[in-house]
Amino acid sequence: MLLLWKPVVQRLMSETKQRLKDHNKLDGYVAIFLLSDDRASEVYVTLKSKYAKKLGIYADIKFGKDRDVDEIQEELMQCNNDLACLGILIQLPLADRLQTEQYRLLEMISPDKDIDGLTSRLFGQAWFGREFLGATPQAALHILDHYDMWDVLGKVCMVISQSNLIGKPLALELMKRGATVISTNSKTPAEMFQEWFDRSEYIFAATGVKHLIHPDLVNENSNIKNKVLMDIGRWSDEDGPHGDVDRQRFADKVRGVTPVPGGVWPVTVATLFHNIVKLHWFSK
Amino acid sequence: MLLLWKPVVQRLMSETKQRLKDHNKLDGYVAIFLLSDDRASEVYVTLKSKYAKKLGIYADIKFGKDRDVDEIQEELMQCNNDLACLGILIQLPLADRLQTEQYRLLEMISPDKDIDGLTSRLFGQAWFGREFLGATPQAALHILDHYDMWDVLGKVCMVISQSNLIGKPLALELMKRGATVISTNSKTPAEMFQEWFDRSEYIFAATGVKHLIHPDLVNENSNIKNKVLMDIGRWSDEDGPHGDVDRQRFADKVRGVTPVPGGVWPVTVATLFHNIVKLHWFSK
Repeated sequence: MLLLWKPVVQRLMSETKQRLKDHNKLDGYVAIFLLSDDRASEVYVTLKSKYAKKLGIYADIKFGKDRDVDEIQEELMQCNNDLACLGILIQLPLADRLQTEQYRLLEMISPDKDIDGLTSRLFGQAWFGREFLGATPQAALHILDHYDMWDVLGKVCMVISQSNLIGKPLALELMKRGATVISTNSKTPAEMFQEWFDRSEYIFAATGVKHLIHPDLVNENSNIKNKVLMDIGRWSDEDGPHGDVDRQRFADKVRGVTPVPGGVWPVTVATLFHNIVKLHWFSK
Repeated sequence: MLLLWKPVVQRLMSETKQRLKDHNKLDGYVAIFLLSDDRASEVYVTLKSKYAKKLGIYADIKFGKDRDVDEIQEELMQCNNDLACLGILIQLPLADRLQTEQYRLLEMISPDKDIDGLTSRLFGQAWFGREFLGATPQAALHILDHYDMWDVLGKVCMVISQSNLIGKPLALELMKRGATVISTNSKTPAEMFQEWFDRSEYIFAATGVKHLIHPDLVNENSNIKNKVLMDIGRWSDEDGPHGDVDRQRFADKVRGVTPVPGGVWPVTVATLFHNIVKLHWFSK
C-alpha cells in the first residue's frame, strides 16, 4: 500500500486552519528569516509562503543576507514579543558570513514560536514530555497517524540515520511511544543490517543512499507483508528525485510504503505550520 | 574482568581537584537543595557533602521542605548569580507539597550550574553538541573511558532501559559516539532480546530486574569473551543489593563487567562533581 501525502496534508491544513480560526489568529503571521541568497532556500521559502496563504495567514519574509547581526537579532526579538507573530523560522543554510552566528541566532527564537524545532530549549522540553517534534520526523509520524499505523508500542522500529534533525529525534520519539528502537549508521555491519531489516516492523530511512532498501533484502524471514517502510528525505541524481527505498518494487508487497516523490517530503511544510497548533494549544 | 569504581573515582577526584585549583575555585561551593524529609535523600546528600569536603570545596545544604516556593526560588536565583557557587542540585524526590513545582524549580537552575543535568536547556544543548551527560549514564562512560573501552564507533550497543534519566540519554550519547544502538524496553519480544544479546558488544542494563542478564543467555553465538556488560543502577531485596547482571557468573568470561555493589553506582557522586569541570571549563 502506498502512503500518500495528499490526504495527510488536507487533514493537517484543515486542523491548522480550524484552530487558528477558533483562537482568532487568522490575522497572525509567521516570520521567515531568509538570510542567504541560496537558490534552493528561496524556493522553499516561496513554498512556505504559499502554504501560509492557503491557511489564511501571512508569511512575513525577513530578508537579511547583508544586514548586521545586531539588526537581525533585534528583529527576532520583536517577533518573539509580537502577539500577532505565530511562529518564527530561520531558513538554513545561512549566508557564509553569518555561519558562525547560526547557533546564537537560532537560540534567540522563543521556544513557544520555534515551529522548526531548532532551539535547544524546545528539544529539551520535548525530552521531558512536551509534545513536539521537528517538521521532518513529525511529518513521517503524521502519515503513520493518518493511516492508523501510529501504534508502535512493543514494535521493533529501525531508524537508518543518526542525524540531529531526523534520526536522533525520531529514535527518541519512538522510544517515547514505547517502541524497541534500532538506530543504525553507515558503520553498522552489513550482516546485522539484513537481520534487523527482517526483524523490524517499521523502517525509517533517511540516508540519501539510493534504494538502500531494495527487494534483494527480502527473504523468507522478512515477513515483508507486515512491514511499514518510511522513506524520509528526498534526493536527486541524473534520473530525477529518488528515495532510500526502491518503492516501486515494494508497493504491492508491504503493509505501507511512502513514495519519493510524494510521501514524507510534501508533508513537511504542512507539518511546519501545524506545529503552530502544537506549540500554542497543546499542553506544555 | 571486573570494572571497578575505585581507580575511576580516584582519577575523577584528582582531575576535579586540579581543575578547581587551577581556576582558583577551591573557595567555591556547591548548593544542594534538600526539599523533603526522605531518609534516603538525606543519606545521598550526606555522601555528596562528604565528597565535596574531600575535594576541598563546601557543600551548602539548603533545607527547605517547609519553606515557601517563592523563598526557594529566590535562593535558587541567588545561587545562579553567585560566582562562588560552582554547581546547584535539587535532591529528588521533593516533599509531596512541592511535587507540582518540580519541573519549574529544576528549570530555574542555570544550565551552566546544572551538574545533575536536569534542565531542559542543558539537555537540548547536549543534543546540539555540548559535551554533557547526567551523572549516572556519564558514570558508566567514565568507567569505559578509564578501562580504554570507550571507543564504540561502529560497535553494537544494547541499552536495556528507556528512562529519561538513564536509558534515553545514554542511547543518544552512544549515537553521538557513532555506535549502532538497540534500545529495548519491557515489551521487547524475548526471542529478539536473546538475539540482540548475542549481537551486542556492549550491553547497558538499568531495569531493576535482578539478574536479567544471566549465563543461560550465553550460547555458541554469543561471543561472550568480547562483551562489556555495564550494570547501571543499584537495587535491593532481602538478599541485599543486586544489579541487572549476574556478574559473579560472568566475571571470568567477559571482556568487562561492572559489579553491583561496586561498579557504576559509586562513580556517580564523583561524576556529579566532575560535571563542574565539564560545565565550566569545557567548550560549550
